[in-house]
Amino acid sequence: MGIKLPKGFLANGIHCGLKKKRKDLSLFYSEKKCKCAALFTTNVVKAAPLILSEQVLKANDKNIRAIIVNSGNANCMTGKRGIRDAAKMVKSAALALSIPEDSVVVSSTGVIGKPMNMEPVVSGMTELVRGLSPNGLIPAAEGILTTDRFYKISTRVFPAGDKKVTMVGVAKGAGMIEPNMATMLCYIMTDAAISARALKKALQLANKDSFNSITVDGDMSTNDTVMVLANGEAGNQTINGAGKNYKAFQRNLEEVMLDLAKMIVRDGEGASKLVQVSIRGAKTALDARKAARSIADSLLTKCAISGGDPNWGRVASSVGSSGIKFDPDKIDVILDGVVFFSRGRAACPAAGKLKKVFKGKNVSIEVYLHRGDAEAVMYTCDISKKYITINSFYTT
Amino acid sequence: MGIKLPKGFLANGIHCGLKKKRKDLSLFYSEKKCKCAALFTTNVVKAAPLILSEQVLKANDKNIRAIIVNSGNANCMTGKRGIRDAAKMVKSAALALSIPEDSVVVSSTGVIGKPMNMEPVVSGMTELVRGLSPNGLIPAAEGILTTDRFYKISTRVFPAGDKKVTMVGVAKGAGMIEPNMATMLCYIMTDAAISARALKKALQLANKDSFNSITVDGDMSTNDTVMVLANGEAGNQTINGAGKNYKAFQRNLEEVMLDLAKMIVRDGEGASKLVQVSIRGAKTALDARKAARSIADSLLTKCAISGGDPNWGRVASSVGSSGIKFDPDKIDVILDGVVFFSRGRAACPAAGKLKKVFKGKNVSIEVYLHRGDAEAVMYTCDISKKYITINSFYTT
Repeated sequence: MGIKLPKGFLANGIHCGLKKKRKDLSLFYSEKKCKCAALFTTNVVKAAPLILSEQVLKANDKNIRAIIVNSGNANCMTGKRGIRDAAKMVKSAALALSIPEDSVVVSSTGVIGKPMNMEPVVSGMTELVRGLSPNGLIPAAEGILTTDRFYKISTRVFPAGDKKVTMVGVAKGAGMIEPNMATMLCYIMTDAAISARALKKALQLANKDSFNSITVDGDMSTNDTVMVLANGEAGNQTINGAGKNYKAFQRNLEEVMLDLAKMIVRDGEGASKLVQVSIRGAKTALDARKAARSIADSLLTKCAISGGDPNWGRVASSVGSSGIKFDPDKIDVILDGVVFFSRGRAACPAAGKLKKVFKGKNVSIEVYLHRGDAEAVMYTCDISKKYITINSFYTT
Repeated sequence: MGIKLPKGFLANGIHCGLKKKRKDLSLFYSEKKCKCAALFTTNVVKAAPLILSEQVLKANDKNIRAIIVNSGNANCMTGKRGIRDAAKMVKSAALALSIPEDSVVVSSTGVIGKPMNMEPVVSGMTELVRGLSPNGLIPAAEGILTTDRFYKISTRVFPAGDKKVTMVGVAKGAGMIEPNMATMLCYIMTDAAISARALKKALQLANKDSFNSITVDGDMSTNDTVMVLANGEAGNQTINGAGKNYKAFQRNLEEVMLDLAKMIVRDGEGASKLVQVSIRGAKTALDARKAARSIADSLLTKCAISGGDPNWGRVASSVGSSGIKFDPDKIDVILDGVVFFSRGRAACPAAGKLKKVFKGKNVSIEVYLHRGDAEAVMYTCDISKKYITINSFYTT
């Protein structure tokens, strides 16, 4: 059973032996050639599979058939051997699937700086391919996880002309998430017919307000990847970069990606709350983003939220250190809908209201700057002792 | 008993009632007029006492006699009332000391966004002044603390011509320390005779490689202040901005400030290790600083150090996300003297060596970029569960 993949897609995930017990090898496969758009980390240190996949997509982004992904090892800082290992993964998957090597892209996630153990990957490939199924989404979503507490799946069905288009996304990510896509893998499959160019444009736009608007701990990964595969099996008229059908496609893609982004934040290592930070009335969009990010990245504020402590002074201080210009005596600070500071004065909310702030699973921080009309929203999570425990003994 | 202040200086610290039990009001006093140089936070949100002290020093930086400091309340985001309260603190100290109001500067540290309770401050002033003593340094150092586990004092004695100059610095700070001087107070008293201009120059230089080279949690405070008072009582020939005596003064000031900066890092909330991050072989000094800071600010690396886990991949990843250009295949990563990565290859150190990395009280991270000759050093601490505990319930 499980969630159905879009028409013409199959998936599977198995335990091959890179990790002790959990699934660690996943495959996403299309029976027909796909248009493929992708975004990769901006970290200067790029993992080998990213370097290889970028090359494949540069030459051949209209004929992709499969994505092979392992967890347990990031295959990063592994030098020339890393590149050879990533190529071996591609070759092994292509062979087992009887498809050309240049129709396969590859991802890895896990520990940095350790050479891959390729034996389990190669020898697990036959079992992985044999198990491919239209119902294989959940095992595939499980096979890409590292410190995640749960798999992340989001789906949308929407019309394109007289046809029905399906879109299914899976993601992994818990720690080390920040804007510019840090330690996060996301694969979206759709049966929409769409041009390679329109697909690329839609992905870039959707990314801005989804994965680039979340932060867990401010660390940026070496392996982050978002990919969309579109195989055209819905039979709709090919979507180009404008018009109603393009807009619907773009909106649904953004929704799927924002769903997944929020799940990643909610799964932040040791996190218990999803925090929405909104900046309003900024002079420019960049100012709004800088201020939102400064709040969302503040360790002290994350701690305060974890403890249910409405420390609005820290919020104001974060805006102050964000590098933007504003008048501290003219701002409003609102936590969970309760005004704490308004235009130069502490609002001293009633004790009854105070008690409810930062206590729920979803909390909000809003700052009005009264400098203009620009806005920004960022999502983050609180930080608890569990985060430290998880990350203190990761490689050992 | 205790540590002697420089000639002509007196100090005291008492519990006036802003905090429940610990000392919360301190006074540093000179019998003669002082030259005074100061640096304040670059946060746009500036606490009231900083705004007031900046005004005082702008008009009168050659005639300062006293610094009055409270802990327990930062008097920040307190609007016009905050400014009035800071002025009241100055007035009350000036009155009790029988000195002009414009010879007194003021600092506050503690919770942001709560109006000051001025009653205990004003009524404690007489007792505070009455207890002033050349041996009052330790109580004064205690009165400025918030979440600190210990007071911070550093002293130097050095010759200036045929005279002996004494320099004594005290500081507070534990959480929220980052470059650009975050939540940190530091007062340095010296009996050197030095021009106001030379004092300012020396302070700015010394600050760069001391307080601006430390980071605890990346948060920047609204109240940070470094001040130097020089009363000339050593009787040396007045030091100007050049020459042997100036150099000695500058070097000793930098040493005192670096001592205090390292004590602050060591006292990082919940920290157990002092971490020295060195970048060598960078193309520019700015590149070196960016890379050092990116490593020092990485929560994941701080966690790894806390757990004694030599996760060098995270270190390399932080350099990669710092925004500087380099070739990942040409760098070396060295942790506690053990080479983990050298020019594109994992070095796989012997298990015996591995066991010792990140286990001591002082740990080091070195990265060689092989791009040029520029270097930078940053100091930070590890992060433990205790940090979260301390900061989750601060205002409540």
